[in-house]
Amino acid sequence: MNKRFAICLLSGGLDSATALFIARNESFTPLALTIDYGQLHRRELESAKQIAKHVEIEHRIVSIQLPWGGSALLDPKIQIPENRSVDEIPKEIPATYVPARNTIFLSLAASFAEARGAEAIFIGANALDYSGYPDCRLEYLISFEMLLKQGTKRGVEGKSVEIKAPLIVLKKSEIIRIAHALGVPIEWTWSCYKGGEFPCGVCDSCLLREKGFKEAGIPDPLIVQSKR
Amino acid sequence: MNKRFAICLLSGGLDSATALFIARNESFTPLALTIDYGQLHRRELESAKQIAKHVEIEHRIVSIQLPWGGSALLDPKIQIPENRSVDEIPKEIPATYVPARNTIFLSLAASFAEARGAEAIFIGANALDYSGYPDCRLEYLISFEMLLKQGTKRGVEGKSVEIKAPLIVLKKSEIIRIAHALGVPIEWTWSCYKGGEFPCGVCDSCLLREKGFKEAGIPDPLIVQSKR
Repeated sequence: MNKRFAICLLSGGLDSATALFIARNESFTPLALTIDYGQLHRRELESAKQIAKHVEIEHRIVSIQLPWGGSALLDPKIQIPENRSVDEIPKEIPATYVPARNTIFLSLAASFAEARGAEAIFIGANALDYSGYPDCRLEYLISFEMLLKQGTKRGVEGKSVEIKAPLIVLKKSEIIRIAHALGVPIEWTWSCYKGGEFPCGVCDSCLLREKGFKEAGIPDPLIVQSKR
Repeated sequence: MNKRFAICLLSGGLDSATALFIARNESFTPLALTIDYGQLHRRELESAKQIAKHVEIEHRIVSIQLPWGGSALLDPKIQIPENRSVDEIPKEIPATYVPARNTIFLSLAASFAEARGAEAIFIGANALDYSGYPDCRLEYLISFEMLLKQGTKRGVEGKSVEIKAPLIVLKKSEIIRIAHALGVPIEWTWSCYKGGEFPCGVCDSCLLREKGFKEAGIPDPLIVQSKR
């Protein structure tokens, strides 16, 4: 049987790991792609390596520099917002937004996909329990898929790449249940925007994760582990 | 007077240098961006540095790796097509096509633009005397501009970045005349797909440049220099 390749953007977080396991479950052969973009929470890169090694797939880590910064995830002088609960997170796009991040990630994934003849790109974007980033919304991802039809050799030849965002309209608790069912090594995933030894518990990403586990009725194995 | 910034993608070739000079001529303050993507013709990077230094502008060189290759510009095992004249260049997309290259370049430019509040991105794309790359066409560039409206903070706030491709429908001879009129240091620009000491004269890029200078009725100062 011919292999159907899918590029899986793997940050090392819970969502991208779950998207990777969904790709496997859909009989794709995942080619994992992790971008080291100078994120201060470099611990997620180790998580990505550990997860890719666990599922024994090809894994590329590509480094880029974004020397212009413009994000709390890149510049230690910009504070990562802290809140006491999900309900207190302000509605505007937070300081953790990285200019054009998913456009950069997807463009590198598209290059990888075209060079390897992959049919799809999996991204763990979620537009429900998320930080409000514009490049995590369905309308953006559809625009990107259209762009590849125009701007790649495979696209103009009618063999375009599908952008698959299986988590896009799921609640965090639903993502967690799927992760649990598919055997994602949740304890290795890293969501916290800070690079500490243990999750901070007060950044948006920690708060969303905590709420998700609470709603799913499952203890977060990462937190259980941290408290040991 | 407030500065109006424009990110200028500067490869070191004739077209991107001309686009940069057009941006200056339109009273933008250019922020030059050169991408070292592992191109075998690394000489163009030196050209980019020389040109940016000459016009005394801020210049960033960002390195990325495209370890999956898929292009004659990246992989020495893939031959760069050679022809005797422009008329003999086959119509299909050539082996020098780099998967998703302009999408990667524009996404990095978009990140730079957003972080610095730039109003425009200048790209030297040309869809007339060109190598047939899908990501050099106007419809692709319009799609990318639309994508930024959806996928960036500035975009959703209604302060989107304009993609400016002032050379898109010009003939190479017209580009050369503009370059000449604006004082582009043409002798420093590097178009050849091969990384030699002198332009090879047989790759598509050399042939298109040669035809352009012939039609413009101007000698190519790079060739004059090479023959000294």
